[in-house]
Amino acid sequence: MSFIATPQVMNFSEPLLLRSGQSLDQYQLTYETYGQLNEKKDNAVLICHALNASHHVAGTYAGAGEDSVGWWDNMIGPNKAVDTNKFFVIGVNNLGSCFGSTGPMHLNPHTQKIWGADFPVLTVEDWVHSQERLVSALGISQLKAVMGGSLGGMQALSWSLEFPEKVAHAVVIASAPNLNAENIAFNEVARRAIVNDPDFHGGHFYEHKVIPKRGLKIARMVGHITYLSDDVMNSKFGRSLKNEKIQYSTQNVEFQIESYLRYQGEKFSEYFDANTYLLITRALDYFDPAKQYENNLTKALENTQAKFLVISFKTDWRFAPSRSREIVKALIDNKRCVTYAEIDAPHGHDAFLLEDERYISVVRSYFDGISNTKNSAEQV
Amino acid sequence: MSFIATPQVMNFSEPLLLRSGQSLDQYQLTYETYGQLNEKKDNAVLICHALNASHHVAGTYAGAGEDSVGWWDNMIGPNKAVDTNKFFVIGVNNLGSCFGSTGPMHLNPHTQKIWGADFPVLTVEDWVHSQERLVSALGISQLKAVMGGSLGGMQALSWSLEFPEKVAHAVVIASAPNLNAENIAFNEVARRAIVNDPDFHGGHFYEHKVIPKRGLKIARMVGHITYLSDDVMNSKFGRSLKNEKIQYSTQNVEFQIESYLRYQGEKFSEYFDANTYLLITRALDYFDPAKQYENNLTKALENTQAKFLVISFKTDWRFAPSRSREIVKALIDNKRCVTYAEIDAPHGHDAFLLEDERYISVVRSYFDGISNTKNSAEQV
Repeated sequence: MSFIATPQVMNFSEPLLLRSGQSLDQYQLTYETYGQLNEKKDNAVLICHALNASHHVAGTYAGAGEDSVGWWDNMIGPNKAVDTNKFFVIGVNNLGSCFGSTGPMHLNPHTQKIWGADFPVLTVEDWVHSQERLVSALGISQLKAVMGGSLGGMQALSWSLEFPEKVAHAVVIASAPNLNAENIAFNEVARRAIVNDPDFHGGHFYEHKVIPKRGLKIARMVGHITYLSDDVMNSKFGRSLKNEKIQYSTQNVEFQIESYLRYQGEKFSEYFDANTYLLITRALDYFDPAKQYENNLTKALENTQAKFLVISFKTDWRFAPSRSREIVKALIDNKRCVTYAEIDAPHGHDAFLLEDERYISVVRSYFDGISNTKNSAEQV
Repeated sequence: MSFIATPQVMNFSEPLLLRSGQSLDQYQLTYETYGQLNEKKDNAVLICHALNASHHVAGTYAGAGEDSVGWWDNMIGPNKAVDTNKFFVIGVNNLGSCFGSTGPMHLNPHTQKIWGADFPVLTVEDWVHSQERLVSALGISQLKAVMGGSLGGMQALSWSLEFPEKVAHAVVIASAPNLNAENIAFNEVARRAIVNDPDFHGGHFYEHKVIPKRGLKIARMVGHITYLSDDVMNSKFGRSLKNEKIQYSTQNVEFQIESYLRYQGEKFSEYFDANTYLLITRALDYFDPAKQYENNLTKALENTQAKFLVISFKTDWRFAPSRSREIVKALIDNKRCVTYAEIDAPHGHDAFLLEDERYISVVRSYFDGISNTKNSAEQV
């Protein structure tokens, strides 16, 4: 039985200048916190989410039961790996997302029309800057840790670069210093599926009271394939048929894997915003801290001050261990303190969300360790 | 400079009973031949094509120049690996395809309407049986070899099972004894993209004078990603931008890889039939000769009589070497004569269509060898 979580909203009225050159004059962030901020305000852990997740990291909602459980509830909570009896954990919905923070489905205050596809294009760095304001407003001058998987890991890494003195520990899981061509390619397929859906209406579908569900379904199906390992797909679905016998149909479901993907696509298309999908995959594509250092990641990470925990999963082909090792190498080149674990989990990229004793143990012992040390700022 | 190829058409009026239980009362096959059938009619090599190829295997068309070169022209022709000075090579367009053989864009003789999505669902075995009639009509009682890559390799394998005594050598390249869950999943994404395109009209778009181009584009983009290796994508495209600087756009092209995929999708959507795409990917999904032998491939291949050349490519993650090795193992279990080469080519699945000296040499020496031996039927 999980604890009860309560979403909160914070409004920001100072313009946020974005990497694109645009700015957001005002915005709100929806967030949740678990545990108690201590008197010194030095036990805060910020959790950054990946593509389709939200501020609802752990716990359940009052009256909603286990169906409303947070996406990283197996990792975060009382006596869990990130122990909310010790840490003050903050989950925050990213700008441009569709779970409460300001995004494309909200009103553009300048036009009083829904933003839609006109919502400013965002970067990982923009998210980090928007999150920093929330953290500051909560009175926290240094985070004990910033932690995330996949795109969330990119945010953790970016925090250590954008606000080096404000991050004691960065926990970067199943992530990469940038996307490779294949990842960009999969994102582009997903985006084209959405944009080419006639119900997308150039990103202004809200006005037409339709949703580009066809495109969202395809986007999610493609995504799902890449989150799983070949092995886990074979062991979970293999060539199992939906019906006892082959139906000889090109349009109906024949194989269990098809049924699974269609279901996932359908479910996703009912709750996820199409413009958000475009924005978040684009932020993934753009992230590349080494770019301004002539692709020298060592040089790019020179300014980090945090200690790092980096974790990858052997069967993750979307964010392969070799990509995490690039981060580890660049940190070691800079003589940063870095712990690296490569978990032999079978689940592919999805492993970062799943229960795996070895994985959870690594996180637990890392956080046990840091709960007993003072923040680096105080050690000075 | 290639030789001139000339497509031919053969009509068949005896009903072809299909695995689905349906039958095609009459059909035509478009084919090409290169080289001369010798007097004993024992030098014929049948080439089976993969998803988007055709009977036009080698040579160019009169007046059309190098743009019209056949899809395996680097492999087949005078003095090439499959030497048309020695062999009589037959290329044939599969039933249900869109390059001249009977398919969904033709008239259903029973209704005098275009077949569209009502065209019978086909299997690899159906293709083999339709091809056998062509081969027989050409007066050939045993093929010196049946050869193909990817889905073409499945047809070569199927020939050795459906007509064991009619195949002296089966050349199975970049193929598999069946598709795994991930491959089916990618096919399903492609099919859903096509079927969900409003211009698909349930597969009867011909009547509406439209083409489900959006769906075909997505299908081709997904396909293309899986035909290339991660490495070759990184070396060919990496994170190169289309423009000098990032444009901050979710809908316009930012990266070269996006530009490449959009171009490939666009080109494909202009010449490929949507119903054909559904039919051929479904035939791929269904192929599974071991299924009726309780998934025992060794048992399934017991009836083969041919000698085999099996080739795989190290970076092919769509039809991985391990899948080819399953075929090799099952053949060896049956004490069949099998040559296996695993080529360390960087290009992924596409490698089977590309120039690689090691690969071409393996095929060349195999065919050099068999051109000097008699067909197994005569050796008895």
